[in-house]
Amino acid sequence: MLILVVNAGSSSLKYQLLNMEDESVICKGNCDRIGIGGHISHKGDGVALEQDVSFPTHTEAFEKLVEVLTTGDTKVIDSLSEIGAIGNRIVQGADVFSKTEIVTDEVIDKIEALAELAPVHNHGAALALRACKSVMPDVPMTVVFDTAFHATMPPKAYMFGFPYEDYKELHVRKYGFHGTSHRFVSSAVAKAMGRDVKDLRIVTCHMGNGSSIAAVDHGKVVDTTMGFTPLDGLLMGTRCGAVDASAVTYIMDKRGLSPKEMADYMNKKSGLLGISGISSDNRDVSAAAREGNERAKLANEMLQYQTKKYIGAFMAAMNGADAIVFTGGIGENDSPTREGACRDMDALGIKLDNELNATIRGKLAKISAPDSKVEVWVVPTNEELLIARDTLALVNG
Amino acid sequence: MLILVVNAGSSSLKYQLLNMEDESVICKGNCDRIGIGGHISHKGDGVALEQDVSFPTHTEAFEKLVEVLTTGDTKVIDSLSEIGAIGNRIVQGADVFSKTEIVTDEVIDKIEALAELAPVHNHGAALALRACKSVMPDVPMTVVFDTAFHATMPPKAYMFGFPYEDYKELHVRKYGFHGTSHRFVSSAVAKAMGRDVKDLRIVTCHMGNGSSIAAVDHGKVVDTTMGFTPLDGLLMGTRCGAVDASAVTYIMDKRGLSPKEMADYMNKKSGLLGISGISSDNRDVSAAAREGNERAKLANEMLQYQTKKYIGAFMAAMNGADAIVFTGGIGENDSPTREGACRDMDALGIKLDNELNATIRGKLAKISAPDSKVEVWVVPTNEELLIARDTLALVNG
Repeated sequence: MLILVVNAGSSSLKYQLLNMEDESVICKGNCDRIGIGGHISHKGDGVALEQDVSFPTHTEAFEKLVEVLTTGDTKVIDSLSEIGAIGNRIVQGADVFSKTEIVTDEVIDKIEALAELAPVHNHGAALALRACKSVMPDVPMTVVFDTAFHATMPPKAYMFGFPYEDYKELHVRKYGFHGTSHRFVSSAVAKAMGRDVKDLRIVTCHMGNGSSIAAVDHGKVVDTTMGFTPLDGLLMGTRCGAVDASAVTYIMDKRGLSPKEMADYMNKKSGLLGISGISSDNRDVSAAAREGNERAKLANEMLQYQTKKYIGAFMAAMNGADAIVFTGGIGENDSPTREGACRDMDALGIKLDNELNATIRGKLAKISAPDSKVEVWVVPTNEELLIARDTLALVNG
Repeated sequence: MLILVVNAGSSSLKYQLLNMEDESVICKGNCDRIGIGGHISHKGDGVALEQDVSFPTHTEAFEKLVEVLTTGDTKVIDSLSEIGAIGNRIVQGADVFSKTEIVTDEVIDKIEALAELAPVHNHGAALALRACKSVMPDVPMTVVFDTAFHATMPPKAYMFGFPYEDYKELHVRKYGFHGTSHRFVSSAVAKAMGRDVKDLRIVTCHMGNGSSIAAVDHGKVVDTTMGFTPLDGLLMGTRCGAVDASAVTYIMDKRGLSPKEMADYMNKKSGLLGISGISSDNRDVSAAAREGNERAKLANEMLQYQTKKYIGAFMAAMNGADAIVFTGGIGENDSPTREGACRDMDALGIKLDNELNATIRGKLAKISAPDSKVEVWVVPTNEELLIARDTLALVNG
């Protein structure tokens, strides 16, 4: 079966077409600048397309996608009927969705209603779902939620210390994000270890422009570092991560910022960018650190140190760990971050093979020393593949 | 030498007179309701005094204290000249004071100026210092800072992920509090273990109405859970502890709170009180939990779980631990909190003797099992004694 995976935001629509016979990617691309212009980037087997197109809404983007898949040089199918199903990534399922679902009008309404429950809006995603249904009405669709894998967290982990009314009335709690990635890599590392994920305690570190760490205890998430929104936890590209709440109100007061402006400040001007003053991209920050920039060095050290502490915290939460997994743009590719996070952790049973670690970029590999009690792995994440697998399983019933 | 230890807030003045020959407490009390009325509670050897007195300012409170110490039934000295020195507890030393200091006019000015640097104001303490100097001008005085023991934290631990300008311009960073208690119990546990604190990695859990945990690595703090102010970290009596910063701005927006109102909300209406809806006192919350109150149970579980996670995080920061110390009102007296925090931690080398633990209240005792790799101790804190010792050393010095 062919499955189309769609990851839509308010102004973009990333897609990937997979052949589930062998789980290979047939083609992928991005319809970008929706509502503010329009551009498609597409790559298939031996063909690449870069074209400005008018995308007033998600509907035109889906229409262009159908045209690209079924006509011209980029043609890979004769008609839409060859696509068995479409799997959509949705960021926020809150406590309404705890698993992958078949899309119905009611489901779309519920997804849209979540905008009221949480500041991470699914508005773009809901628009895209409606557009997709109008352009491809006969193809079964599913929704896969970033939050769903975290639905197993107990209250002691997901509750914040605010008055209980903030939970009941405002739905303020930890939801967790990157769930599809944490699920994919925890399963993948279990397979690589020749073990069942249900027998393992795994700390999964998804580190990229956005970063989160999860404690996956015998296959179920018991804690994670994000968050009511994807702001909390680790230092990120432009996000501050965990900070003292009293500093939030203090900075607002001193700088005269409204709640929305402060949220913007913490989401877009902080993190690696705010600390280093160089860039939100860890590669740029690390390059500056190597050239001696003190603030860039500090940003690197903070990220490594925070990662180390969360690994310790989640090992306490699970009474140890069998494996630590690094994934995401930084986790898969940046060996110094992995080394810094695992340095001087032998008392907790963690010993990296530093020479091996330095050689691993973007591929599945065990990077712990042979005598490390806890195995440390690099596992490339593949959220699209998991969405496609979920979708296949659901439409096959 | 006799040393008077003073702990003054904006409306109260707690004191203790110690005989440093044997470190015994001669008498102690509290001048309360300064500026809003006035009351003294005093206890000495066989005498107790409760009296309403007019305390328009700290000066009248000190004058009353001198009267109580030198006249009537409560008399313990003939004149002030018998007091060798006065040691004052100051909450916030920020990054200006990293050790105990002899009080000069310049030092008082600096302490007052810290009100500009940090929202934890020393205004009451500065008023008290000036009043004390005017009433007892000939007695040497020292200031001991709650933040000072934490001055050894490295930048990777004390920096938040906000833009660097917030650190440079607004002095937003982690300072840490309860330093005198963390210092006292880390030294005391080393002594009890027959070891030098410089050879040990200790996690000190000061848990009471306010709570903080510190990682004391070979005698020096490398990390702690408080905070720019004493809000961050563990769930406290009325303080929320660590929360997602995005929830702070969200609640402000939804509830229409100003930064100062939100700070108040997080400091005075959250924590054990906000979660349980019962009380800010852990004893009341635990009693309600035993009677089946679900929100009270949740508050208990959150505190235990958060403590467990910080222990794990700080063990990662120090590459293990030789000892965990519980102190403060909850830490010294509430065995279920200690048991919950240490439950299922044998993979990290922590095993409590649960039967023994259940019997220990407010006294020095090792509560870990004989085969626990990490020793777990209850150590009653004594901040006044440490202030007196520091003061003695400095005036003798």
